[in-house]
Amino acid sequence: MPASAQSSRRPKALKKEQVDLLVTGGTVVTMNARFRVIEDGAIAIRGDKILAIGPSVEIATRYTRARRILARGKLVLPGLINTHGHAPMVLFRGIANDLTLQDWLEKYIFPAEARNVTEEFVIWGTRLAALEMIRGGITTYADMYYFEDAVARETKAAGMRGVLGQTIIDFPVPDAKTPADGLVRAEEFLKRWKGDPLIRPAVAPHAIYTNSKETLQSAAELARRHKAPLLIHVAETKRELDDSLATHGMTPVAYLDSIGLLGPNMLAAHCVWVNDADIALLARNQVGCAHNPSSNMLLASGVAPVPAMLAGGVRLGLGTDGPAGSNNDLDLMEEMDLAAKLQKVSRMDPQALEARQTLAMATIGGARALHMESEIGSLEVGKRADLIVLNLNSPHAVPMYDLYAQIVYSLKSSDVQTVVIGGKVVMHDRRVLTLNEAEIIARAREYRVQVKHSLAAPQK
Amino acid sequence: MPASAQSSRRPKALKKEQVDLLVTGGTVVTMNARFRVIEDGAIAIRGDKILAIGPSVEIATRYTRARRILARGKLVLPGLINTHGHAPMVLFRGIANDLTLQDWLEKYIFPAEARNVTEEFVIWGTRLAALEMIRGGITTYADMYYFEDAVARETKAAGMRGVLGQTIIDFPVPDAKTPADGLVRAEEFLKRWKGDPLIRPAVAPHAIYTNSKETLQSAAELARRHKAPLLIHVAETKRELDDSLATHGMTPVAYLDSIGLLGPNMLAAHCVWVNDADIALLARNQVGCAHNPSSNMLLASGVAPVPAMLAGGVRLGLGTDGPAGSNNDLDLMEEMDLAAKLQKVSRMDPQALEARQTLAMATIGGARALHMESEIGSLEVGKRADLIVLNLNSPHAVPMYDLYAQIVYSLKSSDVQTVVIGGKVVMHDRRVLTLNEAEIIARAREYRVQVKHSLAAPQK
Repeated sequence: MPASAQSSRRPKALKKEQVDLLVTGGTVVTMNARFRVIEDGAIAIRGDKILAIGPSVEIATRYTRARRILARGKLVLPGLINTHGHAPMVLFRGIANDLTLQDWLEKYIFPAEARNVTEEFVIWGTRLAALEMIRGGITTYADMYYFEDAVARETKAAGMRGVLGQTIIDFPVPDAKTPADGLVRAEEFLKRWKGDPLIRPAVAPHAIYTNSKETLQSAAELARRHKAPLLIHVAETKRELDDSLATHGMTPVAYLDSIGLLGPNMLAAHCVWVNDADIALLARNQVGCAHNPSSNMLLASGVAPVPAMLAGGVRLGLGTDGPAGSNNDLDLMEEMDLAAKLQKVSRMDPQALEARQTLAMATIGGARALHMESEIGSLEVGKRADLIVLNLNSPHAVPMYDLYAQIVYSLKSSDVQTVVIGGKVVMHDRRVLTLNEAEIIARAREYRVQVKHSLAAPQK
Repeated sequence: MPASAQSSRRPKALKKEQVDLLVTGGTVVTMNARFRVIEDGAIAIRGDKILAIGPSVEIATRYTRARRILARGKLVLPGLINTHGHAPMVLFRGIANDLTLQDWLEKYIFPAEARNVTEEFVIWGTRLAALEMIRGGITTYADMYYFEDAVARETKAAGMRGVLGQTIIDFPVPDAKTPADGLVRAEEFLKRWKGDPLIRPAVAPHAIYTNSKETLQSAAELARRHKAPLLIHVAETKRELDDSLATHGMTPVAYLDSIGLLGPNMLAAHCVWVNDADIALLARNQVGCAHNPSSNMLLASGVAPVPAMLAGGVRLGLGTDGPAGSNNDLDLMEEMDLAAKLQKVSRMDPQALEARQTLAMATIGGARALHMESEIGSLEVGKRADLIVLNLNSPHAVPMYDLYAQIVYSLKSSDVQTVVIGGKVVMHDRRVLTLNEAEIIARAREYRVQVKHSLAAPQK
């Protein structure tokens, strides 16, 4: 029987609604409040949002599409959210290792930055970081650095979502001679990016030990005036805690509370040295926290009380931190593995942090930490279409008995096959479509020569 | 000028010695006693051994070859050595997670093994494990399981090097009804594989808590008689320590010493709960130890005193352990990252275990743990030609300031491009030449169905 004869006898197809992109056939791990998992599921995307989600057969009858991603035999997850980092520092990847935070920062990082960080450096660093993050399934990231306007431009060009904070610090830095200069720059930055669909501009006072009370309060006031996020390092090291106790007579969190900084726009990175009262303050003020296991381990900063923070209702996400001796990569698949294992062994309790909770931290938890849970962090109708497709064809991916355990303990960034951000396909079959990979890698190697040379030269 | 005319005026080439394989142009990280690194280095291989090693220009003038691996812009390292695992358990990958060792073993693993482990299961499990290990740069591994003869056949067929122990245990197991049966099987196994260039057969009494003193001593006697390694789990958990103190009035290591088991053929897995006296005993008796950070973290077993063991002269290597809820993969690149970070944070000392020391544990340290340091573990003339080539073309691999930090903290198993074991190219450009990857992955998925079915059925 010829094909035409067969088709002529079919009932006339129902009129289907047109969408821009359909992702079909995969196991959809929604990370919604009920942790719904849809075997052979599909997602219909229009513009930058999820229009429908359900079993493939249902979605197929309702929607036709411009483009399709076939995900049969694969996992479809919300894009991963990296809640803390300093993207351009990839160009300092592993520049100084096996050091304490203080030595690392004061003897290597601050001098290296003073001698090398220009707008051009930030452009190429952001490109390299975006490339690495996209290849590892990260769709949104939070950042604190200098020349943040360049970070924002490059992040948008890469098609990534970013909560990007212009750094404020009480000593001369590459893009500001004084904190007042920094605040002026930050305000310009906030105005320029207001309302962008991908970029949320933010103010980022570095920490309580690098900013005066006045600078911190000015930064917070600026953020409040522009309804912008406030990004800051908090209670990262024992020394920061001890110094705060000595200087202010209270913990870093209590100090930030006392000067009026805690609030539902704050994203506090690290929160390693927090006690029960601090945790209650963070939760009550809806502060978001970024847990960075790799950085906390590599710099020997300590083990954050993750189970207590989760139990206390803190908005807790995962982060990579910068890659310059405090990680040294931008791999949230590895951070998940580390986060769960670190809590288990350090509390001698194999249930201290379970696989599903850990994946939640890397997705919806990260969204909550960024106060963006109504927009991203799970695959739900009306949210932005930020999703990743994970391949299950590698030897380390089979057999699979437990979805969440496989994702957290076995799968790797190299298993991320496709990345969609705001409905746009940013990586397809491991090829990043928005960035020139070969050129970026070549430029990174050139920066190595320049940076090494700058550090060999006598100090100015 | 025609090419022929030009070549006729060249001085006649010196007669070059013929070798089987040349690896040229890479940065050769020898891991020898002086940690020699050769930029643009080369390795000449004849048969299964390294014949020469040096700068490419030198080697090129002395040797011509049947085959060449170009490693320009890449790293050449000794093959990684996985000092502890249970290869066929990959077919139980992640079957039970977030549990203590005791619950995991007694409620899930032992029942799952009783219902599923056959020789056929072991064959396919070993193939899958070998595939994963080769792809991650592991060239030698130590194993303790059942039907070890099948493990040995498949390991040899995969072209890997193995120290493979037939398990002895005081209750009925898939391949032996009694420990006496197990000892008979073990002796046959030792005889069959004696003198094999790739396989070193061993005896593997499971642990002091699963074997009587008599069984342990019989196993040790058997190993001694055949000059074979003795593989055993030692001091893995606090409970094992407490039980040993209660039952024997001494630590597991002291107990093993008291019954005459410690010696230069022992490979003790874990050694988490060892005190200074234990460490001295392990060092004095030249016992090899396998440190398994992922397993110790996931099962919340504890943190092994790695710096003290290294300082005390213990022969210490790294291992993955089995992948069935105690890891869940076979990735020594990740174990290195974990090992260093875990020691740093748990001792609050960023120098507790440095990158170079950690790579040493995964290579020459592993060789010493297996008492094979004269054969493998570093790239030196006369040693077996077991080497891996790491690609540096990924975004996470650039820029590179510190070789060892890059390997341990940034590079991943997916960066392993080529694997040579005993002079044979086992993986070329990420394609494993000795195993049928698609068939193995398909069979692993079939085993998942069978295993899940077996666990759903009522207990016999």
